[in-house]
Amino acid sequence: MPEMRRNPITGDWTIIATERAKRPHKQPMVNTGSSDGEDYSPDCFFCYGNEHTTPHEVLAYREKPGTPDSSGWTLRVVTNKFSALNLDDEFCIDNDNPLKTCCYAHGKAEVVIESPHHSLNTALFPQQQIELLLKAYKQRYITLAREASIRYVTMFKNNGTPAGASLSHPHSQIIATPVVPPVIQAEIDGAGEYYKKNKRCVYCDMVKNELDDKTRIIYENDEFLSFAPYASRSPFETWVMPKFHSDSYHKLTEGQLKSLAEVWKAVLYKIYKGLDNPPYNYFIHTSPTRESTDNFYHWHMELIPKMTIMAGFELGTGMYINIAIPEQSAEFLREIKY
Amino acid sequence: MPEMRRNPITGDWTIIATERAKRPHKQPMVNTGSSDGEDYSPDCFFCYGNEHTTPHEVLAYREKPGTPDSSGWTLRVVTNKFSALNLDDEFCIDNDNPLKTCCYAHGKAEVVIESPHHSLNTALFPQQQIELLLKAYKQRYITLAREASIRYVTMFKNNGTPAGASLSHPHSQIIATPVVPPVIQAEIDGAGEYYKKNKRCVYCDMVKNELDDKTRIIYENDEFLSFAPYASRSPFETWVMPKFHSDSYHKLTEGQLKSLAEVWKAVLYKIYKGLDNPPYNYFIHTSPTRESTDNFYHWHMELIPKMTIMAGFELGTGMYINIAIPEQSAEFLREIKY
Repeated sequence: MPEMRRNPITGDWTIIATERAKRPHKQPMVNTGSSDGEDYSPDCFFCYGNEHTTPHEVLAYREKPGTPDSSGWTLRVVTNKFSALNLDDEFCIDNDNPLKTCCYAHGKAEVVIESPHHSLNTALFPQQQIELLLKAYKQRYITLAREASIRYVTMFKNNGTPAGASLSHPHSQIIATPVVPPVIQAEIDGAGEYYKKNKRCVYCDMVKNELDDKTRIIYENDEFLSFAPYASRSPFETWVMPKFHSDSYHKLTEGQLKSLAEVWKAVLYKIYKGLDNPPYNYFIHTSPTRESTDNFYHWHMELIPKMTIMAGFELGTGMYINIAIPEQSAEFLREIKY
Repeated sequence: MPEMRRNPITGDWTIIATERAKRPHKQPMVNTGSSDGEDYSPDCFFCYGNEHTTPHEVLAYREKPGTPDSSGWTLRVVTNKFSALNLDDEFCIDNDNPLKTCCYAHGKAEVVIESPHHSLNTALFPQQQIELLLKAYKQRYITLAREASIRYVTMFKNNGTPAGASLSHPHSQIIATPVVPPVIQAEIDGAGEYYKKNKRCVYCDMVKNELDDKTRIIYENDEFLSFAPYASRSPFETWVMPKFHSDSYHKLTEGQLKSLAEVWKAVLYKIYKGLDNPPYNYFIHTSPTRESTDNFYHWHMELIPKMTIMAGFELGTGMYINIAIPEQSAEFLREIKY
């Protein structure tokens, strides 16, 4: 049975899940292409007609009413068939030996099938489809966060084989865990300290700083700002942040989702067009489900094109060497016509 | 001029160094091969006769006395020509705007040319050559740590293009920084807390636990233990740790270096043979230069074969999904004849 094990020095958890090794690699492992690709692939688990090859859907949007797990959907979310985590496995930490702390791999992994179109790059979706995608993240977050044992919900996308995608049909993933991940905890700790000292949200201050400075802005509208962070870890790293203060993604209103979709579509398109459809990863950083971070945390999205290799220095130290100047990366993306 | 910038939320530093983008990629970007490859490549910066194409050597071992930067060496260390860091640039943090904290990229980057043989995989070096390599790390650590501004010295190796190596001649790297990297700080914090609570070194306890448990041992001799850590982040992750307590690598005696070389050679060979010369990264975790960690920290080496892709979940959370069971990885490597 898959388990989670804790590093006795840092306290970080690893999920040991051999099931994941069985993920399908039948299909060509290529970057999802442009809209020139085929609409439909008969062998694809995520295409119309193959709904029975995936676990049951947990959410689907349909223009016309239809039965669950039938075709006709515009977006569909299913439990990950090769999940590393399972809600049925009790979350109960075995801490008898502090050097061998473990528990069952409790949690949930889901796949968001972003579109019925087999090969349409997410960057080329109509804005309305991007909005559906962002709405699906919100809805699944709310449902998963209701589980008393779930402490965090990660929403992320791997685009292209070099970024870890194993199927080419456009999809993203959701993983709900019974622990708060270390990267999130570090942000919460840092933002909490900043708030204690300054009585302001550090992310709100960043937004203000970026708007004043202008040099790292990539795209913006009234509610959302996209920019290259000042201490970008890699070339063309792009963040999107609400200009208004909000600690959790799931608090987005319908109107704000529409507005976010506009900025997110612009970002994806600029990355796609400017960098020639690079592999990338993006993820949403939002508040843990059971912590009160209202005043000082601020949800945001981070997109990292895979332009360089994370090597020994980065892995061994957690420091990064960025071979591009963030202001120049931002200028380049800002100039891409959209 | 290259600079370092601080993430205002987490406090982590990024090195912004466009010079690195100019690194040579003239040579075939391939895994360093077996001993079947050529001894010598006339175009290689690291081969005999091309010493003038690198910056001056800062250390060299020669069987017969020779002038610096001449051929005849058995191992040679030079300043990295495409260094991200420079000791001449003052370390002086500009903190006027806490959202834009920066400093010059102060520090030193060096390249260890591990052998005159152009294509000999490190795993196939005679044990004596491995010993020279480990000795060179120690000597350079001692010299670099003397710089008052240097807080940490990272010694690491990228093997194979997918792991970030840009030249095929066997080499490793040393980077001295004016800050303690976050991964090291997290280990020191965790080990410090464990010591406070238990009055014992957590790494010494790990060694004892592994020796009792036996299932994760890969290779050992009287002084050193190599094992798959209990919470391994990826398949075949391998650590080497002294069985005796010691917080810093540079304290190794000549005898201990010889003993470490035996275990390290075994590890490299088992990885090379068992996994068919995979790309990998290794790094040494040792005490910072200006902190007193005598009682509770414990230097060690970590080797991570690049078998899987670090994707959105890992990047976004800092958590890992390992598709292999550490005990099985260890058994596999333990069984490789050496």
